[in-house]
Amino acid sequence: MPTETTMSREAVSAFLDEVFPQLHHGGPGPVIEAVGPLTATMRLPYHERHLRPGGTLSGPAMMMLADVALYAAILANLGPVALAVTTNLSFNFMRKPGPGDLIGEARLMKLGRQLAVGEVLIRSDGAEDLVCHATGTYAIPPRKN
Amino acid sequence: MPTETTMSREAVSAFLDEVFPQLHHGGPGPVIEAVGPLTATMRLPYHERHLRPGGTLSGPAMMMLADVALYAAILANLGPVALAVTTNLSFNFMRKPGPGDLIGEARLMKLGRQLAVGEVLIRSDGAEDLVCHATGTYAIPPRKN
Amino acid sequence: MPTETTMSREAVSAFLDEVFPQLHHGGPGPVIEAVGPLTATMRLPYHERHLRPGGTLSGPAMMMLADVALYAAILANLGPVALAVTTNLSFNFMRKPGPGDLIGEARLMKLGRQLAVGEVLIRSDGAEDLVCHATGTYAIPPRKN
Amino acid sequence: MPTETTMSREAVSAFLDEVFPQLHHGGPGPVIEAVGPLTATMRLPYHERHLRPGGTLSGPAMMMLADVALYAAILANLGPVALAVTTNLSFNFMRKPGPGDLIGEARLMKLGRQLAVGEVLIRSDGAEDLVCHATGTYAIPPRKN
Repeated sequence: MPTETTMSREAVSAFLDEVFPQLHHGGPGPVIEAVGPLTATMRLPYHERHLRPGGTLSGPAMMMLADVALYAAILANLGPVALAVTTNLSFNFMRKPGPGDLIGEARLMKLGRQLAVGEVLIRSDGAEDLVCHATGTYAIPPRKN
Repeated sequence: MPTETTMSREAVSAFLDEVFPQLHHGGPGPVIEAVGPLTATMRLPYHERHLRPGGTLSGPAMMMLADVALYAAILANLGPVALAVTTNLSFNFMRKPGPGDLIGEARLMKLGRQLAVGEVLIRSDGAEDLVCHATGTYAIPPRKN
Repeated sequence: MPTETTMSREAVSAFLDEVFPQLHHGGPGPVIEAVGPLTATMRLPYHERHLRPGGTLSGPAMMMLADVALYAAILANLGPVALAVTTNLSFNFMRKPGPGDLIGEARLMKLGRQLAVGEVLIRSDGAEDLVCHATGTYAIPPRKN
Repeated sequence: MPTETTMSREAVSAFLDEVFPQLHHGGPGPVIEAVGPLTATMRLPYHERHLRPGGTLSGPAMMMLADVALYAAILANLGPVALAVTTNLSFNFMRKPGPGDLIGEARLMKLGRQLAVGEVLIRSDGAEDLVCHATGTYAIPPRKN
């Protein structure tokens, strides 16, 4: 297992802001809190565009958080050369989160030459119970070297 | 297999607009094209907020389309009494859709007392190839009767 | 979409019997009924080793049927050069099948250079209702050419 | 979070042996190593019927291990009243396990009135890398009380 990342938190943030400016469309987008060996932690600041009936947060907001968190973990560990493509995402929704920030903790379970596979644990900020568990698979394009 | 729906397309549309006004946040939201026995067809009109690098459409936009299409199929067949809760959503992304409307065809494979399970085929409007295949599971609250 | 397969039903059968003799361990294994462009149909003959309490059939028996049916569809369409590796399998169990043969209809939704993605509809022989819906993803090793 | 289980390891073992005698068909079946609050650990002893080409172990063997481990965790925490029904199982296969015992660590992420959701980490005995990550959903029948 690697003990260092290839890109720093700041470098991954700058890269994401450049290639995915739409993440901040209509309100604040997800923010990288930390990256580490095979991991990344993202915060999705609360915004009314994510609100749903009953005062809960939308599934697509959680999907966006999970996908970006896994993508950030891949970038941090492989570097910006890799434009990984999401091929599979699966979500189990356990509890309805109340209005507030969401925290997604991504962990890569495999980072191979062709495929990366990871999971994301999503919680309301400060809470212990999971609101959602996601797994994702990413195809990594062949590198020229 | 039922041969009629409980709610019409217009009734499901009105219900969704009332309980999910956020679907139209920042631009036009999904539109129901048809409902039938165990089925619903939704159109997601193209809007720049769904755009991603390389001129493709975002995963969360497809998730929203899939979730709403399955929810519309459940409503049309069970009626508005049922506030079904999404418990699982899984996506296989096959191709990157170009900029344009997306069409989601939802079909319920099971509509039981406690659980509904369905799939959604997502294509670019007018195209034959699938861009995404989704499956979803919904918990149906106990009815009082 | 292709209109012919690369391998015939007989050729795929012979190949599977050679490389997966364990499929017939302890009783008859799955039998290919047909292959076609992007499709394969498999039958799992009823055997008591698949039986579970209440007179239903086991989940692992359905998993084996789904995995082999998708693998047969890939072989039929790519030829025996491809030792595809299963990377993801997802199952929704809709109804409990009674004792009897199971039929799995596999259809590839994508057959790309690196990845194949497909779905399998599993029914009891002669019945219309789905007992299980499966999706699978396969990594296709780089070919030397 | 509970700090005790409702059934002991021995009680869950005896219950499984009684209701699922087929798990030991053709060779030794899975063995419960431990149960705890929301958790269970199962061992699948190596047997040639699980072997596949290249000296690896079959997907259905891993599915059986994952399903039984989650079921054991539910039993240990809810008691034998609950005949939970598997509604969804999803697997990401990360590495090919060599011949040897497999260990599955199940953890319930939700144990509600109607649904239980959990994950299982599968490794080769003594190894650190995951060979498979599974998630499962179980419908819990209404209890009479």
